[in-house]
Amino acid sequence: MNEEHRVRERIVNWARAISSGDRAGILAHHAPDLLMFDFRAPPVEGIAAYDRTWDFFFANPKGPISFVPHDLRVTAGDDVAFASCLVRCDGTSGGHVDLRLTVGLRKVAGEWTVIHEHHSVPTIEERFLP
Amino acid sequence: MNEEHRVRERIVNWARAISSGDRAGILAHHAPDLLMFDFRAPPVEGIAAYDRTWDFFFANPKGPISFVPHDLRVTAGDDVAFASCLVRCDGTSGGHVDLRLTVGLRKVAGEWTVIHEHHSVPTIEERFLP
Repeated sequence: MNEEHRVRERIVNWARAISSGDRAGILAHHAPDLLMFDFRAPPVEGIAAYDRTWDFFFANPKGPISFVPHDLRVTAGDDVAFASCLVRCDGTSGGHVDLRLTVGLRKVAGEWTVIHEHHSVPTIEERFLP
Repeated sequence: MNEEHRVRERIVNWARAISSGDRAGILAHHAPDLLMFDFRAPPVEGIAAYDRTWDFFFANPKGPISFVPHDLRVTAGDDVAFASCLVRCDGTSGGHVDLRLTVGLRKVAGEWTVIHEHHSVPTIEERFLP
């Protein structure tokens, strides 16, 4: 299995952990000092703050939660990689969401480890629309 | 100069090209098949579509345009790298904007080349606010 496949598997398994509400699985391969750009400001720094973002995500669900990546593209070197995808998310308090996700990874002690996540939804602010 | 410094310089110079309206400079180190997640949907695929996003950016400015990255973090291997930063942007038709940016790069023919950009603004949609 080459590095690109390993990174792809890492992200697919992380997304499955989200869909199944497996909080330990969500955090299993994330660095203590990761930096996340969430839907909302400000940036989320460190694994404890990252963990808390999932409290909000899982609160007051409208139905079964699913978090399904598609159009996943992975670029991997020997020890640095990044990936982008679109995600179809259903069941949270926010209802159906189509989000964009970019993930940055570094190999730490032989394991691909997430050190950056950027989640966003397209803006609805009129000032940014043509 | 190590790879991290080279990537940092690449991004700082790209941002300077934006601030000075240098359209050729903006595109100088971007791959033909890059994928950009812009403020708006849908994803922007390829250098021609990417170039067109700058038409909107530079249209109807309210003042001198500045695009200034801060809190830039770079993670670079030998041939794959990614970077994240916050950007303070002023002068466009949208007025003052604080945006989040993640950039993915690959070394192509010895030059760090952008193959992915993810630009976003924090959402204002109430459904995503606590």
